Amino acid sequence: MAEDSQDHSTNSKAGFSHPSQGREAGGRPQGENANRLHSPDLEEKQLLTGGRPGNRYVRIVRPYAREFRRRAPGHLVATERVLRPRGPFGLATETVRRVLIGPRLRTEQEKEERVGKLKGLAIFASDNISSSAYATEEVMRVLALASLGALALSVPITLAIIIILAIVVTSYRQVIRAYPNGGGSYVVAHENLGALAGLAAAAALLTDYILTVAVSVSAGVAAITSAFPELFEQRVLISVAAVFVVTMLNLRGIRESGNVFATPTYVYVVAILGLVGFGLFRMVTGSLPAYTAPPEWLAGQTAHPLTLLLLLRAFASGSVALTGTEAVSNGVPAFKPSEVRNAQVVLVMMGVLFASIFLGISVLSTQLAIVPHPEEVETVVSQLTRTLVGIGPYYYLIQFSTAVLLLLAANTAFNGFPRLASVLANDGYLPSQFQFRGDRLAFSVGIVSLSALSALLIVVFAGSVTSLIPLYTVGVFLAFTLSQAGLVRHWWRLRGEEHGWRQRAAVNTLGAVATGVVAVVVAGSMFMLGAWMVLVLMPVLMAMMWAIERHYRAFKDSLALERPNARLPKPEPPHVVVPVSRLDKAALIALAFARSISPDVTAVHVSTDPEEEKRMKRRWEQWGGEIPLVIVESPYRVLISPLMAYIDALDRQEPKRPITVVLSEFVPRHLWEYILHNQTALRLKIRLFFRRNTIVVDVPYYLGGENEPEHLDDGIGE
Amino acid sequence: MAEDSQDHSTNSKAGFSHPSQGREAGGRPQGENANRLHSPDLEEKQLLTGGRPGNRYVRIVRPYAREFRRRAPGHLVATERVLRPRGPFGLATETVRRVLIGPRLRTEQEKEERVGKLKGLAIFASDNISSSAYATEEVMRVLALASLGALALSVPITLAIIIILAIVVTSYRQVIRAYPNGGGSYVVAHENLGALAGLAAAAALLTDYILTVAVSVSAGVAAITSAFPELFEQRVLISVAAVFVVTMLNLRGIRESGNVFATPTYVYVVAILGLVGFGLFRMVTGSLPAYTAPPEWLAGQTAHPLTLLLLLRAFASGSVALTGTEAVSNGVPAFKPSEVRNAQVVLVMMGVLFASIFLGISVLSTQLAIVPHPEEVETVVSQLTRTLVGIGPYYYLIQFSTAVLLLLAANTAFNGFPRLASVLANDGYLPSQFQFRGDRLAFSVGIVSLSALSALLIVVFAGSVTSLIPLYTVGVFLAFTLSQAGLVRHWWRLRGEEHGWRQRAAVNTLGAVATGVVAVVVAGSMFMLGAWMVLVLMPVLMAMMWAIERHYRAFKDSLALERPNARLPKPEPPHVVVPVSRLDKAALIALAFARSISPDVTAVHVSTDPEEEKRMKRRWEQWGGEIPLVIVESPYRVLISPLMAYIDALDRQEPKRPITVVLSEFVPRHLWEYILHNQTALRLKIRLFFRRNTIVVDVPYYLGGENEPEHLDDGIGE
Repeated sequence: MAEDSQDHSTNSKAGFSHPSQGREAGGRPQGENANRLHSPDLEEKQLLTGGRPGNRYVRIVRPYAREFRRRAPGHLVATERVLRPRGPFGLATETVRRVLIGPRLRTEQEKEERVGKLKGLAIFASDNISSSAYATEEVMRVLALASLGALALSVPITLAIIIILAIVVTSYRQVIRAYPNGGGSYVVAHENLGALAGLAAAAALLTDYILTVAVSVSAGVAAITSAFPELFEQRVLISVAAVFVVTMLNLRGIRESGNVFATPTYVYVVAILGLVGFGLFRMVTGSLPAYTAPPEWLAGQTAHPLTLLLLLRAFASGSVALTGTEAVSNGVPAFKPSEVRNAQVVLVMMGVLFASIFLGISVLSTQLAIVPHPEEVETVVSQLTRTLVGIGPYYYLIQFSTAVLLLLAANTAFNGFPRLASVLANDGYLPSQFQFRGDRLAFSVGIVSLSALSALLIVVFAGSVTSLIPLYTVGVFLAFTLSQAGLVRHWWRLRGEEHGWRQRAAVNTLGAVATGVVAVVVAGSMFMLGAWMVLVLMPVLMAMMWAIERHYRAFKDSLALERPNARLPKPEPPHVVVPVSRLDKAALIALAFARSISPDVTAVHVSTDPEEEKRMKRRWEQWGGEIPLVIVESPYRVLISPLMAYIDALDRQEPKRPITVVLSEFVPRHLWEYILHNQTALRLKIRLFFRRNTIVVDVPYYLGGENEPEHLDDGIGE
Repeated sequence: MAEDSQDHSTNSKAGFSHPSQGREAGGRPQGENANRLHSPDLEEKQLLTGGRPGNRYVRIVRPYAREFRRRAPGHLVATERVLRPRGPFGLATETVRRVLIGPRLRTEQEKEERVGKLKGLAIFASDNISSSAYATEEVMRVLALASLGALALSVPITLAIIIILAIVVTSYRQVIRAYPNGGGSYVVAHENLGALAGLAAAAALLTDYILTVAVSVSAGVAAITSAFPELFEQRVLISVAAVFVVTMLNLRGIRESGNVFATPTYVYVVAILGLVGFGLFRMVTGSLPAYTAPPEWLAGQTAHPLTLLLLLRAFASGSVALTGTEAVSNGVPAFKPSEVRNAQVVLVMMGVLFASIFLGISVLSTQLAIVPHPEEVETVVSQLTRTLVGIGPYYYLIQFSTAVLLLLAANTAFNGFPRLASVLANDGYLPSQFQFRGDRLAFSVGIVSLSALSALLIVVFAGSVTSLIPLYTVGVFLAFTLSQAGLVRHWWRLRGEEHGWRQRAAVNTLGAVATGVVAVVVAGSMFMLGAWMVLVLMPVLMAMMWAIERHYRAFKDSLALERPNARLPKPEPPHVVVPVSRLDKAALIALAFARSISPDVTAVHVSTDPEEEKRMKRRWEQWGGEIPLVIVESPYRVLISPLMAYIDALDRQEPKRPITVVLSEFVPRHLWEYILHNQTALRLKIRLFFRRNTIVVDVPYYLGGENEPEHLDDGIGE
């Protein structure tokens, strides 16, 4: 008992006096439940002896514990019970959700995994390394437009791209150093170059992530359909299904679990390096098999002259190889200590591995004089593998591991996009819904948005990697450039503190210039092929995010309290208007509520019929309630406008008091009943919603005796 | 000045004490406006000397007179100003309405015209007499299915139909006597045979009216396209346009103005009687011109045997001639005294006129051996006129006056349907919207419904009179039968009071039997041709009306007060729950309102993020408002379900007090801003709307400094 009273005093301190005590103090009558004390934190206490003050009482602890645990006074924790589905529809939805995405996770169930170099490489390199599945092919496709002989230029172009890769890797080693907490292009650009550059980086990255999914999934499905050409016709359907599966896995909250990634990444790396090594060995030994492309593959094409523009386009297409390079720098905090060191090592390893694979594939494809399939039915890698090792287990190993790795690359975007969107939403640039984390702690809105947009792209571009590439590369290099430029500014700022800032700035300047030039080359050479879409979309996206941020800021500014201890205004009761069409129970319920909240209540009857008006007046007098009735005659039989005008006029009388309108609304049991009522109430509510300074109160009325609210029955008909 | 104080005492008597006085009595502080006295009927008085009680004051009379006139204390009359359109969209809508349907009419502007015999005949006979334009043709169309020779049977069938007409006219003379206030089939059946028969009559009549419009307009357009066959292809479009014009005229509130009707009706009657007379004269003198139908008109048909069924079908089709016979008995009160006598005379005149025209057309058509056009390109009347007088002014006079008369017949339905619907709505059988009278005192909902349904029928049946007839006649004769049967019951009831009741009952029994037999013949012989649709639709309509009435009755019963002087419950302040997501101005405005209506206010913060939860707690303590805050932790990051469960738990604590939820809602300036907010509030509102016993208060919040509600600024930041 001593514990109880102690606990009770704690409650009072925290502001949890019992309402019935409060009512006593306010001079209001105690209800019939006076021997029960309630508190808003759902702790019920029962007086044992007659309800006289000063008596001891028994506390019934947690009578509502099934839905809530009481952590402290005024602090409840909802249990999973509050989420129990209601009704057959709710149950069905719930069942489907649980089957598809698994049981709900509590917020504190979030786990973080730290990874070492090997797992780190697997996780963060998948996006980049997977580009080797299509980069060579994209270069060759452009060159093939000129002639078969031009295909020999693949190797020099590959080397040029690898030089850019080296510059980017070196630059990003410094990003890792400068932003050990994760240096995405948006963060770096926003912090160093201002909001506009940040928005440009964000827009570039968002489109990038969407295209990563579209391109990776399309390329992954191409690896499969190369092995099974009979599936080629269904490639769009298969791709969309793959996006759906990845979406579901991500809504389940699959995180970058090292083990999931490690196996496929290393299987691919080992298998493809083995293939390249085997091929190079045969090349050196002069035992390369013969390959002849079907002559009709080039028959239909009009040979383009081998212009500089074509060369630049080939280079631009191959630059897709650099996508995903920034992933390591985004994920520095996920590495085991020392994080920066580990990340840097992984970055360089990734660069070396990727360069080897890319160069190897380009050299071997050129040596074999492989010709890309004009309708993208078979990939270059598939042709190369088939020629080198024949169709057998090794061939299928290569194809399947390529497909799986590409799906993992798509999955990377499913981690990146929703997280970036949530950061942007947190900064006010995107609707706040993107911050919401669903049942499994995943950013559901971002995941579903990414899924829908990338699936749309796949359908529109019929799952063709080559058609998607022109849209893809612009954004990637724009983000690179902004990030590197931001870093130059970063070092310049630290010029007093950090020695060696000059060299670092020089490295990033080189990076910025190189990636900037590539961005211009890509945009220029592929403008008409689709890059224009991105260049149009990005400013639109930026303007949208800017407008959203401006709105949210204006909203927050206008809501901010001038002082943290701002006082509530003195509770002045509102002026309450109750529109009544008939004097019935529903009207009395509304009037009773109006009286309970204010002494200034006016009932308004808009009359359209002299007969009914007389009846109303008579009944009102007969009733003899203390509420004044104003009759507003509406000679044009309109109900809402006279009421609105009346409220306006009232408002002009006393502009400083808010008008409160109490509406009695019928709650139907069936939907069809709804159209028989409420038409006027609904239209009135919409008009009132847009009227300044008006508070609307909905008092529901339910049909049928037993369902009638008890507390209102008591008073009526007394 | 003496007058002022006198007037003020009157106000007090009617319950119009000034709120500030009321507040004084309730011990509440006087506001800064204390020297201004307001009253809810918008009468403002200003104290001249410092606001001390007992002082005299000057009244400013009608400061808000622009929108309202003050008729008596507590009684305002809205002026047309309250209807002034707002914004460009409102203005555009208003302009279109005023141009299409004319200026608004006040309720007292309704006029009633009483008519004598001549105008009465024109008004009430148009529907019936216009049937002569197609009745003969419909008989012939059926007979033509057998052979050209069978067409000679048109005259006997016409005579049979005229006998039925005579019985119906005699019967309805008695309806006029029995129901001098207008005896529609619904009223007679409902009153004498009970609700079910009333519903059957109502369903029959509603379908009838719809079909009257469809058939009359189609036949009218057929009269025009007979004269101008190049318009035949556009007949559906022309018909729909005609329905639209008639709809607009009726929304303008065209009443049965005698003059509008008199001219076309008499022009038609005189012209067609002239034609018939001329034809009969030539027939008697043996100088009828020769007519030969193109032989291909019957070539494609397989000759049906001339069975009894075919004869019955011909009779049934011709029975369409009786539609509109009941119009006179519906309109008895519109006649000048003595109403009954005048109506009876008009009824008999109508019967005689119609029978003459109908018989004349049938006889002449048979004599000339006219064959109906198989594709309904030219009407029989057109062929007859053309043959008798040639294509010239008289021919066009006949065709045009036929078309105009048929449109007037359609217009009759536009008077009948909305009125019947409003009577049904008044009895609770149709949604109450059908009782609403629009800008021009017309029952807009009924007019628009009739218009839409009949236009739909015209489109579905491609404007073919012959296809529509099977649907039309069943309902007509069903309504006749119910009405006559009702009258038999009526006379039986009056058997003590009225002498000669036996004869009257006998007449109506004959009428009931005759029309009942025809109804069965029509339903049976044309069942497969479309009568089945009506026979299926009618029970559906009846069930619908029955369900609506049952619902409205249950609704009214449950709302009815047990005693006219039922007391309001003692105003017990509600338990107010205010969900708060952040402690900002919007929250304070909601909390301030909550405090103003009740001392029991609990703020609830559903927390999904431990960081924000801590911030909220800290700010709440810093703020130091007197309102307890309950934090509901939601480990699954769901916002609405824990809140609903919390409200449920509160409710279980004190089930007798209503829960009031105060929501602060952002009112956007642009629609796109809306999707950035309120998503949760909206979903919460829907959930709360369906929760029993919960009152929802919407406190609006507007963006931007200047728009901020002043009265709340005062208190905040003080």
